[in-house]
Amino acid sequence: MRLPGLIDVHVHMREPGGEHKEDWASGTAAALAGGFTAVLAMPNTRPPVVDEESFVQARAAARARARCDHAQYVGATSDNASALAPLAEQAAGLKIYLDPSYGPLRVDRLGPLHQHFAAWPGGRPIAVHAEGAAVATAVGLAAATGRPLHLCHVSRREEIALVRAAKERGLPVTCEVTPHNLFLSERDARAIGRGLCEVRPPLATPADCAALWDNLDVIDCFATDHAPHTYAEKTGAQPPPGFPGLETALPLLLNAVREGRLGLEDLVARLHHNPRRIFGLPLPPDTFVDVDLAAAVELGSEPLQTRAGWTPFAGLKVRGRVRRVVVRGREAFRDGEILALPGSGRDLRDAAASRG
Amino acid sequence: MRLPGLIDVHVHMREPGGEHKEDWASGTAAALAGGFTAVLAMPNTRPPVVDEESFVQARAAARARARCDHAQYVGATSDNASALAPLAEQAAGLKIYLDPSYGPLRVDRLGPLHQHFAAWPGGRPIAVHAEGAAVATAVGLAAATGRPLHLCHVSRREEIALVRAAKERGLPVTCEVTPHNLFLSERDARAIGRGLCEVRPPLATPADCAALWDNLDVIDCFATDHAPHTYAEKTGAQPPPGFPGLETALPLLLNAVREGRLGLEDLVARLHHNPRRIFGLPLPPDTFVDVDLAAAVELGSEPLQTRAGWTPFAGLKVRGRVRRVVVRGREAFRDGEILALPGSGRDLRDAAASRG
Repeated sequence: MRLPGLIDVHVHMREPGGEHKEDWASGTAAALAGGFTAVLAMPNTRPPVVDEESFVQARAAARARARCDHAQYVGATSDNASALAPLAEQAAGLKIYLDPSYGPLRVDRLGPLHQHFAAWPGGRPIAVHAEGAAVATAVGLAAATGRPLHLCHVSRREEIALVRAAKERGLPVTCEVTPHNLFLSERDARAIGRGLCEVRPPLATPADCAALWDNLDVIDCFATDHAPHTYAEKTGAQPPPGFPGLETALPLLLNAVREGRLGLEDLVARLHHNPRRIFGLPLPPDTFVDVDLAAAVELGSEPLQTRAGWTPFAGLKVRGRVRRVVVRGREAFRDGEILALPGSGRDLRDAAASRG
Repeated sequence: MRLPGLIDVHVHMREPGGEHKEDWASGTAAALAGGFTAVLAMPNTRPPVVDEESFVQARAAARARARCDHAQYVGATSDNASALAPLAEQAAGLKIYLDPSYGPLRVDRLGPLHQHFAAWPGGRPIAVHAEGAAVATAVGLAAATGRPLHLCHVSRREEIALVRAAKERGLPVTCEVTPHNLFLSERDARAIGRGLCEVRPPLATPADCAALWDNLDVIDCFATDHAPHTYAEKTGAQPPPGFPGLETALPLLLNAVREGRLGLEDLVARLHHNPRRIFGLPLPPDTFVDVDLAAAVELGSEPLQTRAGWTPFAGLKVRGRVRRVVVRGREAFRDGEILALPGSGRDLRDAAASRG
């Protein structure tokens, strides 16, 4: 079974400042092993990507070491709205953390929020980490400014209900849902383990999980929120929030297709067509993923490419395996082996990225 | 100078549960003395107006004792959305406290907020106490549900900027501003006195105050948020937030007209025409207010009708005095004397209210 190259619109590469967790070479190896040929990287690195200098450095690191295609978000602070607007054309999008997550980035006051929505050019999405009522806050800002809003990792029943209402009113809103919010709930936290189960937004209730499945039609993207931390960090005294997800997403979703919970077209729409449309991404020629729908996989039983080295889905038995990934006519992954070299990926905001 | 009967869309009558601060007889005497012929009463009484029983009792109290026309808001709780919707036609509107204020009413979680916006019929405004980012939250809920949103006591620069943006995008948003936010800032707090200066939203900066004046064109209503507490309470150990305002609003605004900060048409639009349009209020026949624009007044120097008995504007010298108020052809106030009897006011949601 051949799929187009999949796109993960929400990953954390941890470079710079957290290379022991992940860097562009290891993170994009995980992407290819998971069937993703492009990733959009979040700005909460150390230091974060919040101005031209850090943006140039982040893109240079990606160009030097990424094995798949990529683009870089810029991150909002309380005073950088005017500095980010000129970077919009070269950025994956603008990321605003309305709620706390990993790293220092957060903007929750009305003035700076409105400044960001007003200053950011309309052609690129404003992606937000917003939970609960903050989802309505972001919708209000988008509605009042006409900017395209992309809601990251929607996880709760009331959040997806508001997304539905906003879409029915024609508001410029899209959203993504993570595989861990589709396949795990707070009931799984104990089995995953203390510390390891920490993630933002937190694992939700089974009812929340069911609501996501019930509202698949308003979910535009599946995105992993691949947020690698080492096993030692996750089991330490102050476990940072986040799950690695690039290598488990496609097997989990293919298994859901096999179980009839999801159509293959639904999967491809949310991992390829909608990400391209929402983020305005080019279609690289001769780029595809060959998958084996019947192959049995026990997640976490084989070595992972991510430097995080663990998965919250460990022990889960699914069917669906990535066999081969081809990017612009070149084999990038085959049968467990990473073939693409660091630096072979392209920045999807470079004009040349759509050419072979 | 003759004005139409003025309407205050935001007052607290304190009945039941706080009659030592104000009741319908004293509060509507203050209204008439201030040139208001109708008031819309907030639901945060003790007990609050949050279901059919308390709504029926509140309206009965108003009918029995109000000296001017009136209507009663119902108040949102985390679980009464479906109970309030059937009361909409008979209510002034729905009030939701997204931020804390006086009394126990508050709803700040997305689920109940969305339930209220979705369940409330579209013909009556949803009035919200929302500060800062919560203004965007309310705008988002209104935009996602198509419900008319009325933002109470907008007080900060970034709030009025968002109101402007929302209106420019055609969203169903209106707003009110209080005289105390137009004429007082945090710089006046010391002169008003500790405890006495407590109000929600708090007195803002001079820059916020200037921003309100600079954005008069997007301010739909002037509303007092008349929130009477006794002098003893305000100067006690736990001063409750709120200012009385019914008897000082018109002199302050007429003085601003005299000073050229405001047109008389602007004043009448925000105290009569816009309140009627937004809240769908009838026009009682032969109802008007005669004012003397030249009469000098030192605010707080004469006895007040409000049981609160004090004003934060004490000592301010302005020009503008209410001489006579006529409601449906009957003199209700003349030269300092209240003539209207308790019970002479009408509930503006009764079909008969628009008749003579």
